[in-house]
Amino acid sequence: MRAVIPFDVSTPKQRLSPVLEPAERTAFARAMLQDVLDAMAPTPLEPTVLATAPIEDSIDASTRVDDRPLDAAIDAEIEAGTPVAVIMADLPLVEPASLERLADTPGDVVFAPGRGGGTNAMVVRNPAFSVDYHGVSIRDHRSIAHERDLSVGEVDSYRLGTDIDAPEDLLEVLLHGAGESRTFLCDAGFGIETRSGRGTVRRTGDEADSSGTPRR
Amino acid sequence: MRAVIPFDVSTPKQRLSPVLEPAERTAFARAMLQDVLDAMAPTPLEPTVLATAPIEDSIDASTRVDDRPLDAAIDAEIEAGTPVAVIMADLPLVEPASLERLADTPGDVVFAPGRGGGTNAMVVRNPAFSVDYHGVSIRDHRSIAHERDLSVGEVDSYRLGTDIDAPEDLLEVLLHGAGESRTFLCDAGFGIETRSGRGTVRRTGDEADSSGTPRR
Repeated sequence: MRAVIPFDVSTPKQRLSPVLEPAERTAFARAMLQDVLDAMAPTPLEPTVLATAPIEDSIDASTRVDDRPLDAAIDAEIEAGTPVAVIMADLPLVEPASLERLADTPGDVVFAPGRGGGTNAMVVRNPAFSVDYHGVSIRDHRSIAHERDLSVGEVDSYRLGTDIDAPEDLLEVLLHGAGESRTFLCDAGFGIETRSGRGTVRRTGDEADSSGTPRR
Repeated sequence: MRAVIPFDVSTPKQRLSPVLEPAERTAFARAMLQDVLDAMAPTPLEPTVLATAPIEDSIDASTRVDDRPLDAAIDAEIEAGTPVAVIMADLPLVEPASLERLADTPGDVVFAPGRGGGTNAMVVRNPAFSVDYHGVSIRDHRSIAHERDLSVGEVDSYRLGTDIDAPEDLLEVLLHGAGESRTFLCDAGFGIETRSGRGTVRRTGDEADSSGTPRR
């Protein structure tokens, strides 16, 4: 099955700016993309990275530049007619098994909900569907499918459901990741600490700011 | 398989105090417990609610009062020897299929990680294991299993991984719940709204405070 992975080349992961500099955010976004590609490698999904601009370093996957807004770019993929998976690039916890469960779930459309109302991954087998990623997209995607009489499957996956957007999400990578994203964070000095009975992420060491206090 | 559901009778869900009054928190905690019990009904799991104190209204499940701290109460269940599942009471998104996947996953111990480092559900088949729910429990539970040479399985479930603790978690219930918890929130005036492209929960109507502004 075709799989497209939308990837923002220019200003990725801006919500991580409290804890990562721009160049670090770019590197971390690339590490997460690589983890998604690595998880896909042993599966029947054939990835194409749908980049907003040319990617500087080469990556080990087919890449196509499409500078249209996300919805238009994905709708064009759906209109191509054959079944297609759409997988977000910020899912570094995914494993081959999570992707296989997604691909194996029946339905005209299959959704993997993401934390906070997102649609982190989907399979579209009927070109009558179209996407709307703005806002509470999982609700809107269910509505679109319902309006067009399309059958809906959903895959119940913590790994697909965990997109990494905000500083508190980094804890998930440190706890459950195993790939380049986790290595990146560890190398950058991020670690887990327990405060008032709850886990948080703290950055220490070389990356402390000039006042000597960690940035988080 | 035995299944114990720890349930805090006296002061449940204190992190929801910005949006729910004490009596509402008690009612919502009971609704979530009921949703967990309902999801369990068609599965091979045989529930016992392990309550910190007697529950006032009767519930449709075996109940035992154990006023010891959580870890001691669960360790006593594990020491009983036969396999036991431990399922948190604040998982209103669970479905029978999520619980069946948990029960069917092989391992001396099986974990369902929760958002933020928790262990939302587990199966223990070897009494050499013991629990430590304080702090980043999923990490500590993996360590305990490793130290004692126990095999570890993990179940990849968004529904098991979504515990409802804080106001932002209510969005998950509204989007993905189907039982009493969702009904409770809808009846209490909670709804979804989209603000700056992201979904949030807002409480309106009869429950607005005296100044006329919703409490969230």
